[in-house]
Amino acid sequence: MDSLNVPLPTDDTPHVDSLSQPDATSRRGFMQGALVSSAAATFSTLGASSQAQAQTEAMRSTLNHYHLPATDKTVHWGYFSKNLPPFIEVMSGDFVTIETLTHHAYDDFERMIKGDPGAESVFYWDKTRKGVDRRGAGPMHASLFGRGAGEGLGVHICTGPVAVQGAEPGDILEVRIIDVNPRPCANPQFPGKSFGSNAAAWWGFHYNDMIEEPKPREVITIYEIDTTGERDWARALYNFRWVPQTDPAGVLHKTIDYPGVPVDHSLVQENWGVLKHVRVPIRPHFGVLGLAPREADIVDSIPPSYTGGNIDDWRIGKGAIMYYPVAVPKALLSVGDPHAGQGDSGLCGTAIECSLTGTFQLILHKQSTLKGTPLENLSYPLLETPTEYVLHGFSFPNYLADLGAKAQSEIYTKSSVDLAMRDAFRKMRHFLMTTQGLTEDEAVSLMSVGVDFGVTQVVDGNWGIHAVVRKSLFAGGEI
Amino acid sequence: MDSLNVPLPTDDTPHVDSLSQPDATSRRGFMQGALVSSAAATFSTLGASSQAQAQTEAMRSTLNHYHLPATDKTVHWGYFSKNLPPFIEVMSGDFVTIETLTHHAYDDFERMIKGDPGAESVFYWDKTRKGVDRRGAGPMHASLFGRGAGEGLGVHICTGPVAVQGAEPGDILEVRIIDVNPRPCANPQFPGKSFGSNAAAWWGFHYNDMIEEPKPREVITIYEIDTTGERDWARALYNFRWVPQTDPAGVLHKTIDYPGVPVDHSLVQENWGVLKHVRVPIRPHFGVLGLAPREADIVDSIPPSYTGGNIDDWRIGKGAIMYYPVAVPKALLSVGDPHAGQGDSGLCGTAIECSLTGTFQLILHKQSTLKGTPLENLSYPLLETPTEYVLHGFSFPNYLADLGAKAQSEIYTKSSVDLAMRDAFRKMRHFLMTTQGLTEDEAVSLMSVGVDFGVTQVVDGNWGIHAVVRKSLFAGGEI
Repeated sequence: MDSLNVPLPTDDTPHVDSLSQPDATSRRGFMQGALVSSAAATFSTLGASSQAQAQTEAMRSTLNHYHLPATDKTVHWGYFSKNLPPFIEVMSGDFVTIETLTHHAYDDFERMIKGDPGAESVFYWDKTRKGVDRRGAGPMHASLFGRGAGEGLGVHICTGPVAVQGAEPGDILEVRIIDVNPRPCANPQFPGKSFGSNAAAWWGFHYNDMIEEPKPREVITIYEIDTTGERDWARALYNFRWVPQTDPAGVLHKTIDYPGVPVDHSLVQENWGVLKHVRVPIRPHFGVLGLAPREADIVDSIPPSYTGGNIDDWRIGKGAIMYYPVAVPKALLSVGDPHAGQGDSGLCGTAIECSLTGTFQLILHKQSTLKGTPLENLSYPLLETPTEYVLHGFSFPNYLADLGAKAQSEIYTKSSVDLAMRDAFRKMRHFLMTTQGLTEDEAVSLMSVGVDFGVTQVVDGNWGIHAVVRKSLFAGGEI
Repeated sequence: MDSLNVPLPTDDTPHVDSLSQPDATSRRGFMQGALVSSAAATFSTLGASSQAQAQTEAMRSTLNHYHLPATDKTVHWGYFSKNLPPFIEVMSGDFVTIETLTHHAYDDFERMIKGDPGAESVFYWDKTRKGVDRRGAGPMHASLFGRGAGEGLGVHICTGPVAVQGAEPGDILEVRIIDVNPRPCANPQFPGKSFGSNAAAWWGFHYNDMIEEPKPREVITIYEIDTTGERDWARALYNFRWVPQTDPAGVLHKTIDYPGVPVDHSLVQENWGVLKHVRVPIRPHFGVLGLAPREADIVDSIPPSYTGGNIDDWRIGKGAIMYYPVAVPKALLSVGDPHAGQGDSGLCGTAIECSLTGTFQLILHKQSTLKGTPLENLSYPLLETPTEYVLHGFSFPNYLADLGAKAQSEIYTKSSVDLAMRDAFRKMRHFLMTTQGLTEDEAVSLMSVGVDFGVTQVVDGNWGIHAVVRKSLFAGGEI
């Protein structure tokens, strides 16, 4: 991988709320009132036992609420990097509202980009200028495959990073997802709607195992989401088969090999009325949410790892809490790959990829406060929902370290559900033994009779199995 | 495998209800009143569209209800066989109440066998006589490993088989699970309770991957279930490490290598108070429910296959319906491996193994009536619950055919979650294309955004991934 070569902001002050002035490029700090933290404090079970954190919060009478819009200036596309200067630096307890854009928006410009200044600035691409040039962790000069800057080795538009004051390797960052909302379509032709794209792509589990002709093929399905709150389901509008698309730089994309390539709808055949009467449950969540890893300067956004990233679990939505081991100073949180819904497995390669805005509260747990708490020695991303704890196993728990210098390419050749199951078992055993004080024998029995293992995804290089244990198992008192 | 060599009944008339006379060995038919089938008829979504079946049922004004107790005469232990004469022959629409016994009952004789004439007859074993000699599909003379008759190559106590009049290969048998109840402990010392055993055994996913000493070890945990209906959760009572046990024939079992070996509790250390305060959700279901396969005369009960068997999905409980392709004349349904609860994966090798009694309605769908219905070309076991359809993928969908002459040993060396995921994908695609009339592109997109894949089990030779699609996805009308 070459060195980081991407236009970066030169200061790290917080952003203004640019929803009302979407083309704003100025950046200044603000406080959006004092959100009371006590409501959110009862939210967390595991984090609450870190006494020092609670004291820190109690000492602050006012918490800040920042807003980070998604624009060509505030996103990094297709990679994590510990070298990215942050846009906002928050204190533990602060809130951040973060806009995120789906990298599949150009599958239907009219419905997912047009009229939206943030999206237009990010996706802008003509012969002379790209809104965001680097897309992926590959070389800027596309010397590997000729696809474009960054080579599409990593695809997700990530907003951030957000720095957390005082965060250091060894600490745990708790990220509470306070709210998640679809980004309304800005095209006046489609009031009260949002839209998403599902690409059945070459990296999908199905791709080399099709039964209908022509084989293989890539198919994009456009889904409609109601933003008025009337429907908790999405419906499909139409689909089309990918045909070779030439980007504004003149590069021909025979397959979906580079993110944000404008789809020329005069070249594709739109099939309307697909999945008629089918109601897909809405499960808004962030496919990518995580911290910068320490192992490399620039890291492909696709494989998830110990710092989170592209976990692609639909449970990472409103009301959920993620706990991440901090790997680099200031933690550096980024958010992207917004999904309106996904099934466990993400089988065809993508979810309903749909721009969302989330509000997060960030709580820093210093390493010195973790001793004897459930977060001590947490070395993997841990999810807590109101009713469950969810552990994420991967084919390789820290593939960057596990696979050596060529990890970022090797990971795509070694994916295995079997390995992910092994990792999920080990993580759940660790969780039960440390947070619930069980012996190994107790943990193993409980895992067999009361813990559910599911397939998170089989499409993200580092494949995932999650293990779900319900909190109600531990709700009993003395019998 | 040697030929079938097991004491078999000489007639196939139905059984009396032996719950009130549990040592009854007489067998005579009876009708327990006319259960109205219309209530159950609305139960099934997929089966209801088989018009011919509905007509057949409508022509019968009275349906029979049989009762099949579990005794040394009515069970076959550790195998399926197309050569087993049935105990009952039912007509399509009839009901059967079937008692099942867990093969782990001898882990705690006092709580799971003592005072229960059926269980005592099955587990009886002294120097001169075994209640049920053959346990497993191996040789009767234990010439392979010296473990005992049948060699424990297959472990589940199966009650049956039940024949279905007129069933032929190519037909589909619909099995509606009307009711499931725990078998009350017959020992007056434990009123209002049932008990189950969870064995963390050598075939568990964890066995060669332990962290505490001594490694490896097998550990049995005894769980208590309330049968008064007050608690929907089980609690652990105690656990003990397996120590070598000598069976009444003088064979030493260093590990849990043969089912029904009496555990001498004077040799083990009972650790009471394990999993204190933990409440394990009750999910009563049958680990083994299925039809006799056609591919071999005697088939190990452990690996699940296209005719069902040991699927080990906790969703196969009350209110569920299974659809099986009939492989041999009269279908030959057997039931066993009762579980009070299990997590998705059955990680340590077993569930809460607990004797249960189920009531089933059997509906035969003749091949000639299937054309154009959702059951046409169904070649795998399909589960329908009140809210979901669940498809079961295996490492090998029909391992007996897929792996050739040595399939029954080969399957244990080739298990893979990856392969099971592949099979689950293909089956779900088939299901969506045939029962919902979707194109492949529609099915693939829907699988990615709205179908959940989970780990059924990683311990049964032929490992399983299930795919769950909720019925509500298809409940929409014209939009």
